[in-house]
Amino acid sequence: MTDLTPWTHRAAYYETDQMGVVHHSNYIRWFEEARDDLVRRHGIDYRQIEASGVLMPVVSVRCDYRSAAKYGELVTVLALPRFFNGIRLRYEYVSRGEDGRTLVTGESEHCFIDAATRRPLSLKKRLPEYAEALSALVKELSE
Amino acid sequence: MTDLTPWTHRAAYYETDQMGVVHHSNYIRWFEEARDDLVRRHGIDYRQIEASGVLMPVVSVRCDYRSAAKYGELVTVLALPRFFNGIRLRYEYVSRGEDGRTLVTGESEHCFIDAATRRPLSLKKRLPEYAEALSALVKELSE
Amino acid sequence: MTDLTPWTHRAAYYETDQMGVVHHSNYIRWFEEARDDLVRRHGIDYRQIEASGVLMPVVSVRCDYRSAAKYGELVTVLALPRFFNGIRLRYEYVSRGEDGRTLVTGESEHCFIDAATRRPLSLKKRLPEYAEALSALVKELSE
Amino acid sequence: MTDLTPWTHRAAYYETDQMGVVHHSNYIRWFEEARDDLVRRHGIDYRQIEASGVLMPVVSVRCDYRSAAKYGELVTVLALPRFFNGIRLRYEYVSRGEDGRTLVTGESEHCFIDAATRRPLSLKKRLPEYAEALSALVKELSE
Repeated sequence: MTDLTPWTHRAAYYETDQMGVVHHSNYIRWFEEARDDLVRRHGIDYRQIEASGVLMPVVSVRCDYRSAAKYGELVTVLALPRFFNGIRLRYEYVSRGEDGRTLVTGESEHCFIDAATRRPLSLKKRLPEYAEALSALVKELSE
Repeated sequence: MTDLTPWTHRAAYYETDQMGVVHHSNYIRWFEEARDDLVRRHGIDYRQIEASGVLMPVVSVRCDYRSAAKYGELVTVLALPRFFNGIRLRYEYVSRGEDGRTLVTGESEHCFIDAATRRPLSLKKRLPEYAEALSALVKELSE
Repeated sequence: MTDLTPWTHRAAYYETDQMGVVHHSNYIRWFEEARDDLVRRHGIDYRQIEASGVLMPVVSVRCDYRSAAKYGELVTVLALPRFFNGIRLRYEYVSRGEDGRTLVTGESEHCFIDAATRRPLSLKKRLPEYAEALSALVKELSE
Repeated sequence: MTDLTPWTHRAAYYETDQMGVVHHSNYIRWFEEARDDLVRRHGIDYRQIEASGVLMPVVSVRCDYRSAAKYGELVTVLALPRFFNGIRLRYEYVSRGEDGRTLVTGESEHCFIDAATRRPLSLKKRLPEYAEALSALVKELSE
C-alpha cells in the first residue's frame, strides 16, 4: 500500500533570505529530502542503492512558486514518482504551508549511473529488486 | 554595450556532495549570483531596487543538467535576460566548466512586488529608469 | 518542567560533501534549529520576539568535531541554555548519531538588538516575559 | 614569498537571512574557500592531496562575530596558517567588509586521515612535499 504521508519540515531561520521568506533554492533541496523519505517508507533505501555502486543524478528540475513559506512554518512536501521505465525516473512535487496553501509545485527527472564508470545504466538490469519496487509505486499512484 | 562576461566562480568543497560533484541545487544559487552580476555591470544595482521598496521574487526556475562540475573547477555562468514586459522578466542561463563543456542550462522567471504590501507591481511604472535599462539589455541581446 | 527531548533530523544528501560525510558547516545550522526547537517547546516563539522588534544575533560560535554523521543517519542535537543575564545568552550543544556516539559538541553566544536601531538591548527590560522564561530554563538545567 | 592577498567574495542574496544580513553559518564556509585559495596560490592543490588518498577533516572551528556583512558587499577573508606539526594544522581568519571594518575573526583546526581507513596520519610522512610547503608557509607568517 502506498503511504502518501508527506515529508514534514519546519522552515529554518537559515533558510530565509532578506526578503523575509524561505529562499527559493531550498525547495530543490526539500524535494530531495521528500523523495528520499517517500521511497524509504516503501522499503527503498538510497544508501543501499549507492552501496551497490549505483548513483541517481538529477537530469532536470523545475519549480513553480505560488506562495512563500515563512520562517517557523511547518511545511510539507509530497513527492510522487510518476514515471519509471527502468532507466529514467520522474517525480512530481507539491509543497504546502501550515494552512494548506500551495507553496510550490515541481518536478525532477533522474537517471542511473555506475558510480565507477559514471556511465548510464538500467536499474532494471542492475538492481531488479529496487526497480520492481519503484515500478509498483508508480503504478499504484497512477491508479 | 552589452558586456557578456560570464560570472566566474571556483566550485567550493562545501558545494559538493558524496557523489563527488557539485550538488545540483547550487546551480539555482549560481543563477542568482550570475543575474545579479550581469545587471550590476549594466548599472542596475538590485540593492537600490530593494531600497526603493521593490522585491523581485522568482516565479519559476528550471535547470537541465548535462555534465557535473567538480570541486575546485572554475565554472562560469552566463545569465541572459531574454524577455521583459515591465511586469515579468525571464532569464536564460548557460553554465560551463573549465574546459568549456556545458554543465547546465536553465531559465528563471521573475515578477516584481511591493515590499510592504507584497502585491505585484509594474517596474515600468514604479522604477521607470531600471525598467528602461532592463528593456535595453533584453533588446540588445535579441539582436 | 524542562523537556530535554533533542531536536531530531535525518542527515540529507545535500548536506554531505565529497568526503562522504555531512559537511562540518551544517552543524552550525543544526545548532540553530535545535535551540529554536528547544525554546519553542517551552513557550518561547522566536517569531514573536522578532515581531516585537527584537533580533538575537550570534556573537560567537564554536564546534568540536568528534565523529562524522553519514547521509541518511538520524541525528539528534540537544541545545542547552547555560547562561543568561538579560543581555547575553549562551547555549551548549551535543549532537549524537543513531548509535548514540557523540558527533560534535559546541556552544554559541547571543545578544539582543533592536531591529530598527541595531543597538544592543536588555531582553529583561524589553520583553520581561521571555526573559523570565529563559532564566527559568537556565536555572532548571543547572540544578 | 607569501602572498597574503585575501580571498574576495561578493555576499550573495541567498546567503542573507531575514535579519537582513549574511547568515552567520556562511562564514564557516567562506573560511574553507579562503584557506583553499591561500594554499592554492602557494602551490598546494587540495585536489591533489585528496587524489593521494588523504583527507583533511575539520577538528574544531570557532567564529567571533563583530559586524554583519550585507548583501552585495564585497567581503574579504584572509586565512593564515598559524601552526603545523605534520599532523595538526591550525588556521586563523579575519574577514573584512568593503569599508575595511572587521566582520568576523575565527580559527579552525584540522588533522589528516587516510581516505580508505579513516585513520589519522602524518602528512609529513605521507606527503612530505606538501608538508614541507605548509611548514614553510607557517614559518614565513610567523616572522
